[in-house]
Amino acid sequence: MTFTARELADQIGAILEGDGSFRVTGCASPEDAAASELIFVDSEKHLESASRSRAVCVVVTPDAALSGKVLLRAANPKLAFAKAAAMLHPPAPLAQGIHPTAIVAPSAKLGEGVALGPYAVIEDGAEIGAGSQIGPYSFVGRNAKLGAGCRLHPRVTIYGGMRIGARALIHSGVVIGADGFGLVFGEGHYFKFPQIGTVEIGDDVEIGANTTIDRGALGATRLGNDVKLDNLVHIAHNVQIGDHTAISAQTGIAGSSTIGSKAIIGGQVGIGDHCHLEDGAILGSKCGILPGKIVRGGVPVWGIPAKPLAKFKEVQFWHDRLPDLAERLKVLEAAAAKQDK
Amino acid sequence: MTFTARELADQIGAILEGDGSFRVTGCASPEDAAASELIFVDSEKHLESASRSRAVCVVVTPDAALSGKVLLRAANPKLAFAKAAAMLHPPAPLAQGIHPTAIVAPSAKLGEGVALGPYAVIEDGAEIGAGSQIGPYSFVGRNAKLGAGCRLHPRVTIYGGMRIGARALIHSGVVIGADGFGLVFGEGHYFKFPQIGTVEIGDDVEIGANTTIDRGALGATRLGNDVKLDNLVHIAHNVQIGDHTAISAQTGIAGSSTIGSKAIIGGQVGIGDHCHLEDGAILGSKCGILPGKIVRGGVPVWGIPAKPLAKFKEVQFWHDRLPDLAERLKVLEAAAAKQDK
Amino acid sequence: MTFTARELADQIGAILEGDGSFRVTGCASPEDAAASELIFVDSEKHLESASRSRAVCVVVTPDAALSGKVLLRAANPKLAFAKAAAMLHPPAPLAQGIHPTAIVAPSAKLGEGVALGPYAVIEDGAEIGAGSQIGPYSFVGRNAKLGAGCRLHPRVTIYGGMRIGARALIHSGVVIGADGFGLVFGEGHYFKFPQIGTVEIGDDVEIGANTTIDRGALGATRLGNDVKLDNLVHIAHNVQIGDHTAISAQTGIAGSSTIGSKAIIGGQVGIGDHCHLEDGAILGSKCGILPGKIVRGGVPVWGIPAKPLAKFKEVQFWHDRLPDLAERLKVLEAAAAKQDK
Repeated sequence: MTFTARELADQIGAILEGDGSFRVTGCASPEDAAASELIFVDSEKHLESASRSRAVCVVVTPDAALSGKVLLRAANPKLAFAKAAAMLHPPAPLAQGIHPTAIVAPSAKLGEGVALGPYAVIEDGAEIGAGSQIGPYSFVGRNAKLGAGCRLHPRVTIYGGMRIGARALIHSGVVIGADGFGLVFGEGHYFKFPQIGTVEIGDDVEIGANTTIDRGALGATRLGNDVKLDNLVHIAHNVQIGDHTAISAQTGIAGSSTIGSKAIIGGQVGIGDHCHLEDGAILGSKCGILPGKIVRGGVPVWGIPAKPLAKFKEVQFWHDRLPDLAERLKVLEAAAAKQDK
Repeated sequence: MTFTARELADQIGAILEGDGSFRVTGCASPEDAAASELIFVDSEKHLESASRSRAVCVVVTPDAALSGKVLLRAANPKLAFAKAAAMLHPPAPLAQGIHPTAIVAPSAKLGEGVALGPYAVIEDGAEIGAGSQIGPYSFVGRNAKLGAGCRLHPRVTIYGGMRIGARALIHSGVVIGADGFGLVFGEGHYFKFPQIGTVEIGDDVEIGANTTIDRGALGATRLGNDVKLDNLVHIAHNVQIGDHTAISAQTGIAGSSTIGSKAIIGGQVGIGDHCHLEDGAILGSKCGILPGKIVRGGVPVWGIPAKPLAKFKEVQFWHDRLPDLAERLKVLEAAAAKQDK
Repeated sequence: MTFTARELADQIGAILEGDGSFRVTGCASPEDAAASELIFVDSEKHLESASRSRAVCVVVTPDAALSGKVLLRAANPKLAFAKAAAMLHPPAPLAQGIHPTAIVAPSAKLGEGVALGPYAVIEDGAEIGAGSQIGPYSFVGRNAKLGAGCRLHPRVTIYGGMRIGARALIHSGVVIGADGFGLVFGEGHYFKFPQIGTVEIGDDVEIGANTTIDRGALGATRLGNDVKLDNLVHIAHNVQIGDHTAISAQTGIAGSSTIGSKAIIGGQVGIGDHCHLEDGAILGSKCGILPGKIVRGGVPVWGIPAKPLAKFKEVQFWHDRLPDLAERLKVLEAAAAKQDK
């Protein structure tokens, strides 16, 4: 898709400065951009690279000084750029029409315009909302429901009975609805604690490659609207995640923990079972939250076990100086010993 | 499936108290249960929620005081509830019959009643035990063997030559038998150390979604009976895991480590190569075991590197007070300096 | 495949000592070897096990004393053994011919001798180099390119537009080219920062099961030649990895970090965004590198946050003795208090 600078400015809410008829053909970084590609710069220090770029059209802040370019001025250039990119680079279709090798159970319901790639399997009673695209080898189990406009990349597994809202973007290898890890030991071996609940996912959710979201044991595992999960994330049974929460790669959340809205969780974080993260909680990468703990909103935490970042840094400062503290202690002891004589 | 309270009591070894003809239709949590659904309560403090629940039939301890309900009294209510759940919620079939799109090599052997879902692929010489259900896209490679009563969810990969016992429950995305990570650097690049061994898995094993179990380099990677693995676990080449050991999500075990029976390993744990965990070892989530270390049974360990939990806590107590220790040291130094004058 | 001891010696550059006509049928460990299987021993302390082994033919160091065996003497026995293993155990084919259920778009280009397993899907404009074997359910998206001699195990996903060099070995469940985790929050919800770049992978790369490599946001995520990734590794958008770098299981590398050549990275390592690891960097398992940090080559680092291993050990020594330090401090304080009176 191509747009004129003026069309882009109008659509993304930017103020045009320069030749509005300039035709933009795509997005790029300042270093790699062709003349017709759009770039953005949101800090003073990167203005120079924008200036040097071959790109003619640049999204900038309202007061950035940049000459010889067609400017799209916006309060948040990165956001404006993201909007422009969505226009210039609409996602490629993941499937078109119903591929003859797709297997759709007679009682499954496909909304208008649903597309199924090769070897997709849709089981009995499953429902897929209008316009959804289901990639090759993607599987929608018995009575599972997907909203409208969902996009499933190749080989996504949705177990039977799971519920997913509209416009979900689900990457390859995701598994939604596997049994939670609930066991009872007795009579010399493990029994499975019932894992018969569901997964309920809101609208506008994105789920990264090879991430797994387990069904509730009893009741549901729930993700709100606009939740964003990176790759290889593990969401255990009965976890609850509020709207607009983002979770980076390889993080794991144990059973029954609840996470508020607008939380930001780094990569490789571990959250024990029955924790509660308040709205706006901020967890640094690789930190660990002990089972049952509460994490306040708005205060970044870090460490294993996690503590408020300021406290972590204060402790870490002295931790790194432990050999020095030990030496100082030794000096005092020597002085005291001398005095005793 | 539905059962009367009396039928359940008889089957799960509970003592019935109240109307044995009451018909139970499923399992639920106290909060969500309908009148006909079974709940359980195993601690004094949750009796109130059981009392308030719409559920009529409750599994309780032998001496719990709960009126107005049909009671199933059992020494271990959670275990009894798990048994009842297995009766009330038998797992849905993962495949029925041999789907016409399943591809079965002529020399593969399917036991009686084996079911293959759409697009399953069973290669030459593979053997699948009676009654096993193989979900869509699941792949059983050349000469691999599965015991009776196995259940493979959609898209499980069993590489050629791997061995799996009876009643395995394997979730979507699992990969069994990929090459171990064995490399030899020489002549300016990596050579592959041979990864030609197998995986041998006992009976009654459960493997969570997207978990990977590598083949032995030479010899076998082995999992005993009743081993339970959560999601996204990594088991490297030649690891040996004893019976009844449970491993939580995102834990990784490096090459040639041996783990005894009845070990309990938390999530995101890292175990170096050539470690030995004794029977009954208990590893807290996110801990790290250095290569070659031994972990004693029965003593919980935590930290990176891991130490016995009691020791960990003792050190951590002072770690968190490091700024205070540093201040106290400074005070002593000031006093000593004053005295010197 | 079988070879005589002389043939092996010639091919792997070893010096034969003993009966060159002895026929070797495979590789094994000293404990499990049959008489006709090759073993190796590269340290004095394992000579005894080699001596006891049924194996007749042994790869040893130039000066090892081992009698009654056919010896293949090499400076690096493990390397020589790896070379012999590659001859004795050529990998089994992952596909043969073009399976009738493979779906190949008309505009896709398959090199000579390309084999496609059941249910492989090759989309429009994709190119696959000569002799490559594509396992069942493996997917090569629109305009993606694979070099010659690649081996894709069952169900690998290569998103459209990605580039992979020659002789890649890719295990089951790998996802190459999913969207990076780039988000912009504005107007009350997340917008996707454009994820329209590619992945460019060199020659002779191996990628372990269920590993994910995200496409660049703008520009490319790049892996050099001879890069080796273990299972469940996460490579974020725009990461750059130099030649001959090896990364163990469950490690994650955040966006735009650059890693030099011949780096060795342990398992469960976390590397923040915009880090730079120099050539030959060595990262201990489970360590964490803060965003933007530089890691020097040749100096092992460990800890969270990581520091040079020698420094880590020095600090850790005192960390483990914190209760003792606190006690010593208390003694000094008591003495000082006494003196004050």
